[in-house]
Amino acid sequence: MVIIVETGADEQTIQRLIDRVGALGYTPHPIRGVEKTVIAVIGEKTQEKIDILETMPGVERIVPILQKYKLVGREVKSETTAIRMTSGMEIGGEEVQMVAGPCAVESYEQFLNIARYVKQAGGHMLRGGIFKPRTSPHDFQGLGEEGIPIAQQVKADVGLPFVTEVVDVRDIEHLHDVADIYQVGARNMQNFALLTELGKVDRPVMLKRGMSATVDDLLQAAEYVVVEGNSDVILCERGIRTFETMTRNTLDISAVVALKRMSHLPVFVDPSHGTGRDWMVPALCKAAVAAGADGLMVETHWHPQEAMVDGAQSLTPVDFATLMSELPAFCSAAGRTL
Amino acid sequence: MVIIVETGADEQTIQRLIDRVGALGYTPHPIRGVEKTVIAVIGEKTQEKIDILETMPGVERIVPILQKYKLVGREVKSETTAIRMTSGMEIGGEEVQMVAGPCAVESYEQFLNIARYVKQAGGHMLRGGIFKPRTSPHDFQGLGEEGIPIAQQVKADVGLPFVTEVVDVRDIEHLHDVADIYQVGARNMQNFALLTELGKVDRPVMLKRGMSATVDDLLQAAEYVVVEGNSDVILCERGIRTFETMTRNTLDISAVVALKRMSHLPVFVDPSHGTGRDWMVPALCKAAVAAGADGLMVETHWHPQEAMVDGAQSLTPVDFATLMSELPAFCSAAGRTL
Amino acid sequence: MVIIVETGADEQTIQRLIDRVGALGYTPHPIRGVEKTVIAVIGEKTQEKIDILETMPGVERIVPILQKYKLVGREVKSETTAIRMTSGMEIGGEEVQMVAGPCAVESYEQFLNIARYVKQAGGHMLRGGIFKPRTSPHDFQGLGEEGIPIAQQVKADVGLPFVTEVVDVRDIEHLHDVADIYQVGARNMQNFALLTELGKVDRPVMLKRGMSATVDDLLQAAEYVVVEGNSDVILCERGIRTFETMTRNTLDISAVVALKRMSHLPVFVDPSHGTGRDWMVPALCKAAVAAGADGLMVETHWHPQEAMVDGAQSLTPVDFATLMSELPAFCSAAGRTL
Amino acid sequence: MVIIVETGADEQTIQRLIDRVGALGYTPHPIRGVEKTVIAVIGEKTQEKIDILETMPGVERIVPILQKYKLVGREVKSETTAIRMTSGMEIGGEEVQMVAGPCAVESYEQFLNIARYVKQAGGHMLRGGIFKPRTSPHDFQGLGEEGIPIAQQVKADVGLPFVTEVVDVRDIEHLHDVADIYQVGARNMQNFALLTELGKVDRPVMLKRGMSATVDDLLQAAEYVVVEGNSDVILCERGIRTFETMTRNTLDISAVVALKRMSHLPVFVDPSHGTGRDWMVPALCKAAVAAGADGLMVETHWHPQEAMVDGAQSLTPVDFATLMSELPAFCSAAGRTL
Repeated sequence: MVIIVETGADEQTIQRLIDRVGALGYTPHPIRGVEKTVIAVIGEKTQEKIDILETMPGVERIVPILQKYKLVGREVKSETTAIRMTSGMEIGGEEVQMVAGPCAVESYEQFLNIARYVKQAGGHMLRGGIFKPRTSPHDFQGLGEEGIPIAQQVKADVGLPFVTEVVDVRDIEHLHDVADIYQVGARNMQNFALLTELGKVDRPVMLKRGMSATVDDLLQAAEYVVVEGNSDVILCERGIRTFETMTRNTLDISAVVALKRMSHLPVFVDPSHGTGRDWMVPALCKAAVAAGADGLMVETHWHPQEAMVDGAQSLTPVDFATLMSELPAFCSAAGRTL
Repeated sequence: MVIIVETGADEQTIQRLIDRVGALGYTPHPIRGVEKTVIAVIGEKTQEKIDILETMPGVERIVPILQKYKLVGREVKSETTAIRMTSGMEIGGEEVQMVAGPCAVESYEQFLNIARYVKQAGGHMLRGGIFKPRTSPHDFQGLGEEGIPIAQQVKADVGLPFVTEVVDVRDIEHLHDVADIYQVGARNMQNFALLTELGKVDRPVMLKRGMSATVDDLLQAAEYVVVEGNSDVILCERGIRTFETMTRNTLDISAVVALKRMSHLPVFVDPSHGTGRDWMVPALCKAAVAAGADGLMVETHWHPQEAMVDGAQSLTPVDFATLMSELPAFCSAAGRTL
Repeated sequence: MVIIVETGADEQTIQRLIDRVGALGYTPHPIRGVEKTVIAVIGEKTQEKIDILETMPGVERIVPILQKYKLVGREVKSETTAIRMTSGMEIGGEEVQMVAGPCAVESYEQFLNIARYVKQAGGHMLRGGIFKPRTSPHDFQGLGEEGIPIAQQVKADVGLPFVTEVVDVRDIEHLHDVADIYQVGARNMQNFALLTELGKVDRPVMLKRGMSATVDDLLQAAEYVVVEGNSDVILCERGIRTFETMTRNTLDISAVVALKRMSHLPVFVDPSHGTGRDWMVPALCKAAVAAGADGLMVETHWHPQEAMVDGAQSLTPVDFATLMSELPAFCSAAGRTL
Repeated sequence: MVIIVETGADEQTIQRLIDRVGALGYTPHPIRGVEKTVIAVIGEKTQEKIDILETMPGVERIVPILQKYKLVGREVKSETTAIRMTSGMEIGGEEVQMVAGPCAVESYEQFLNIARYVKQAGGHMLRGGIFKPRTSPHDFQGLGEEGIPIAQQVKADVGLPFVTEVVDVRDIEHLHDVADIYQVGARNMQNFALLTELGKVDRPVMLKRGMSATVDDLLQAAEYVVVEGNSDVILCERGIRTFETMTRNTLDISAVVALKRMSHLPVFVDPSHGTGRDWMVPALCKAAVAAGADGLMVETHWHPQEAMVDGAQSLTPVDFATLMSELPAFCSAAGRTL
């Protein structure tokens, strides 16, 4: 780290800082400039010691040099992590994956119907909420446990892996029979108790970026899972909160570029939640692939007018099939396949 | 709700919309303007039905008219909720309360030392993290269960109520013996599993605003607790994420004014987390009281240079005592006492 | 517009509102719901009259129905505006244009060198600041008037049109001899005096989105130019301010999708300023084209280490040539040419 | 500045960086840590040289140490600037000033009526727009030049100084006869041509913070005025753009605390524009004073329902008088007078 000393700090204050750095077990390197003094600090850092130094008289601010994440960074592992599913499908490889399905599993009929046309159009995985986190307690919260056998049956019927959200540590076990990938939603990205438990399961985790999480926060959240032993984490950009009101969130395509550079983990993009507008989804799927995304996650309708949640951001069967027919050219331009 | 019809929608599309509204059990009131048509919709709304309508052809957007929260709104209960603690202290009454203490309980000696000077300076409640949510898994996470007897002993020693954060539904029971108020941190504001469980306990809940939560989101999160039967919820503004990098977050004092008008629940302000800068805390405590806050929550140091977390935002004993001596004039100007 | 009446407003208050609407020359349509009353208002609206109504007792809020921009909206002109340059090049047509060049014109040698390799790699237009708006008065502000003959000479040498920023109404005339397109920078997007004057010139205007401007604000700013008679406006997304610190701004690719749907004006994207990171620029150029952008604007280096401003976001000659060789596949996938 | 070298950079790359620093006239101080190397750089910095270094191979990022503003910082002038008006009134002294008036000057009768009750209630200065910057060209833009004699007459009638906005460099001269303080609006905070011209006039400048300007940006904008010779600049917080939709902007009271610490310039707060809600204005005026503001700026109504612009954020005569009667207690608590 580098300690920037306050302008006008006297020699005694500076010396006490240097002594303190030494007492904490570091090697201090003071550099005296024309107007400012800085102290470079060498040694193994912990947040606790940084906090101690931050409160010392004479400290203007401290600039950390090292990233706070270690295991998920490209610096420790330069090749991209490829996650192999039991079906043989590889996430993070040459093939771009499309995960599609309804916001919520509502009934066997609804989910089967959607699953069939997702498969027919070339989708690789199914999505669908069984436990739904909703902003208001008065809104539909998903079928809960009764949705599990429905999803199991549909998976068996169409033969596609299934991604579903877990919102409570107590549900991890229940969902184990049905979830091929556990999804952590944006609202739970910093639910560290949940992340820690998911670090102990034998399934990949799809970690969605929180609505106000920086790229750095997302990588540190992924670190919570990986540090427990589960290194199969997929990062998912799904929009951040900004002042713009035209879209539900602002989809941050540049985060894909940043995440691919900084981390070896696969990166997906969800433009359905990212925008909340069905008419934006196809163009942003294409943009995500062009920017280097390893996969996409979109919401699709049954009969659009019957969807119980998030209708306005879901693609109709026709729109989904059109998108799937247009994507290969973009994948190919990006040196990928669909 | 009001449905705004797309410019240029033909009569058949509009009629189908009107029919659909009727089929959902509502009474439609179409109003045809010079350029636009709107359809006012009368009847009990659910998010599901709104979502269905949003996907109908010809719908430009839907404007909800009613608030999404019901139980926590001033519209259903015009007098402010006063929460009476077992000690007789009243939260939300004439007296402004000061909750103070370290970011984390680190040892008996540390917590007792701080608790004593908090009490001596006139503080009303203690705060201190036992389970700490930290952005990185490599940072200190609190003492965990071994912190519970320490906090119990210190409470007994100084005789002040204790506010502490719960980060996992499985810890609610463990903390029951020591927490006079359960705190839900900003990162868990939309951990609905946790909120639902806290709706069943016999203790007040201090609900901190999420870093990207609107005032409306905060009120809906409070609704999750109240709907389960626990109406003793304290709302706490603690800063939101913006582009400003000078402060850790941007403390939104106007949210105090909004929350006091829209809800009957007491409102606290935490300028320590809201800014991350010790030198900002006193001025913002005064501003919060001037704006109508019912209470304050600040972090205080032991020996500042020894704090294990969040040192840079904690007040020294001297600064805390000075603040406590200056606050009464502002409370008095606001028609309150300290 | 629709007036949403406060819950609990009495009949007299509602009647006064209705009367007031009528007195302002509108036709009021009150609709009484279970909990709320709304009043739909028919007639030609002005902001002034909306403001008057907003202050009436009993008004909770007013929802405008019509867009605030008229001339730039797709609703008044469904086909995309194609701007034909004197060279015959068409902006907003099938061909995607690449505008490239240095942040600032520094010398004849520098600008010529860059212009040559931009042309050689297939760039369509040159960019380069002559008057530079800089956050600090202590930073380099561009060559000013002495840069004009340099730019004229380079244009003549390589035969490409030139886009340059105007920061002061008094410079419009000076730049008239050299600017084929006048650029309005993000900081001046709401400099209405400048926009109004540019509405009177016979050159296209490239209008960059302000750092905190919504899509709606940008369209209203464009309206300032068009309303004066100059309908050749190019909109340019260049990143918005968010809490993310990894990038200088957050490039909002979804704005491209929104602008193309809402307006008939051509839309460009500038990922150099949008991110401030050279390594992000190629991937985001591809994403912009995939999302439907009509053109791109990027910064390129001379000798990277010699650039006087914005070096870290500029592409080297090799990187620029590589980008130009990779873009055609994405243009083609999007049904365009480069 | 401190150059943070990329992890894994080889010795040759590091040496080239060190050489380059030397070639630019600086003294490099490389410090080699366990995982990272940093190079502290001593010498007079310019943005241009920083930009050059940023593009060098091996540079991860550059951390500037010195502030970008010089003349407006507390580091160069520790006592607060007190601006003495021709009337003898002192801005930035012990007395907190209230600037009040309509959003726009609409007529002699309107402005006189408001000016009279502002004076009667104890207001210190008048405000009122003659040239109004409006988001849409279709909205009322102020009376323009015909408003000048009206404002002059009202000033003479009531004997209060007058603050008014200048939106165009060509209007500075016109307004010179009537403006006691030139106001630069949020949209023009980085209109550097305007700031530079205002640096040459003999009147104080009230500089409003841009909607997405950091505290640092605001101080650098002020530097543009001061560097030209006009050191009488008043900074004004008026809300920033965030994701919160309850208020028009989020008033950043913590910016007052930051600006007072970092700069010697007086700081005002405008809660009318900051929130867009009349019912929030009194509480936030009190909060601003409690936080250390030197003055306030609020909008007041004539007959509220007749105001041509910004009605919903203006105080009625009764509300304004009540506010003026309640403020002294808060000023007194803050060691000030009103």
